Amino acid sequence: MQFTSEQRLDDGVLEREFTLGEIPGILWTPASASTPAPLILLGHPPLGLRKMYPRLVARARHSAAEGIATATIELPGSGDRPRWPAIEQARAGLRRVMEAGEPVSDEIIDALVLPLVEKSVPEWRATLDALLSLPEIGGPVGYSGGVISIGIRLAVVEPRIVAAGFFAGSLVPAAMFEEARRVTIPLHVLLQWDDEGNDRQAALDLFDAFGSKEKTLQANMGGHTGVPQFAGDAAAQFFTRHLK
Amino acid sequence: MQFTSEQRLDDGVLEREFTLGEIPGILWTPASASTPAPLILLGHPPLGLRKMYPRLVARARHSAAEGIATATIELPGSGDRPRWPAIEQARAGLRRVMEAGEPVSDEIIDALVLPLVEKSVPEWRATLDALLSLPEIGGPVGYSGGVISIGIRLAVVEPRIVAAGFFAGSLVPAAMFEEARRVTIPLHVLLQWDDEGNDRQAALDLFDAFGSKEKTLQANMGGHTGVPQFAGDAAAQFFTRHLK
Repeated sequence: MQFTSEQRLDDGVLEREFTLGEIPGILWTPASASTPAPLILLGHPPLGLRKMYPRLVARARHSAAEGIATATIELPGSGDRPRWPAIEQARAGLRRVMEAGEPVSDEIIDALVLPLVEKSVPEWRATLDALLSLPEIGGPVGYSGGVISIGIRLAVVEPRIVAAGFFAGSLVPAAMFEEARRVTIPLHVLLQWDDEGNDRQAALDLFDAFGSKEKTLQANMGGHTGVPQFAGDAAAQFFTRHLK
Repeated sequence: MQFTSEQRLDDGVLEREFTLGEIPGILWTPASASTPAPLILLGHPPLGLRKMYPRLVARARHSAAEGIATATIELPGSGDRPRWPAIEQARAGLRRVMEAGEPVSDEIIDALVLPLVEKSVPEWRATLDALLSLPEIGGPVGYSGGVISIGIRLAVVEPRIVAAGFFAGSLVPAAMFEEARRVTIPLHVLLQWDDEGNDRQAALDLFDAFGSKEKTLQANMGGHTGVPQFAGDAAAQFFTRHLK
């Protein structure tokens, strides 16, 4: 892991860009960290870190105020990373059926999501190795948001992640419902009740499938990007409860 | 409204029992109330105030710590109030079909709930008149918990109630789904995902029916009485957001 830039934000949060091999990422650490900080891995949709930066830094500042460090990496095929023709083709296929108003088939969802899970989960784990070797990062570790299937796989395979916050707003392959049953860590799941890109019943079924004894579904009014401020606060409190 | 007893709890909260005509009730006010306090009407199931007291006083203390007064009254036919044979008969009917494992008919639900709504809602409103005439109570006013149909009716007919927290844990007459569409105040709805006495899909349908632009469903694992501490905290934060 190599740091490539460093700046102090106005609230004192230290923002450092890094690369891990080919993968660019960002680490935010609280202004005053006397002891090694807990960490949240910030997931995000595959739209590129640059585009997602405003929302990511807002989440990072929120966590830093609670004494929690946050980090994120670019997803494969997104942002400045090399293009990934198979994923682009799957995305074009999804766009076509959605514009035609046709139902999204399992094949399209699988082609879109499963390769992303397969490739990105090891990258997140390697990032976690590198981050936990820093003296200022101590854990425990949470995972928050982004492509929910990546979060599900991470929650199943990565024992260092002790709590996860998911956003029920993406297409979920049928295979991931099975994997969801093997998730046992505490979960906080956000659902936008009128999410235009998300089937409500599928989101409720997925919530039901999670094997965790402690899981909370918080559903709010509005579309995909309309998550109210207080719902963000509730998710932050969930992590504070489990990581501090 | 006549106060019949008064005591300071160990955290300084002032607890006063009162009667409003024939109806017994309890008012809790914060330890240090320099200005007139907001108020939450504490609903509860028809099991009698004495039985519900431990849970009610815990909610009252929680609110008082936020500077919010709380009050509750005995429901008709419960506790020390005169018996109500029609309701007792409806309850016995419900018990019979539940013990027999039969589906609960609309007739039974209507007979059980609608008279309680008709009779108790005017009592809550009269209590509100009396409470708001006290110099230490200023509003705004919220309604929290208890028989959800009573809360729905209050939210529709009582303009002084500006926010409501409901517990999706009781049988709801079909007519109340229609009334739910006319609710427009901010809502915070708790659902116990495995509530043995509550149909999950009906609870989700009811949440969907509410006309409010701001409504949050918080679903947690466990049975009817297993609401986790953090869910109580989230409900309290909802009221603080809207009443303070």
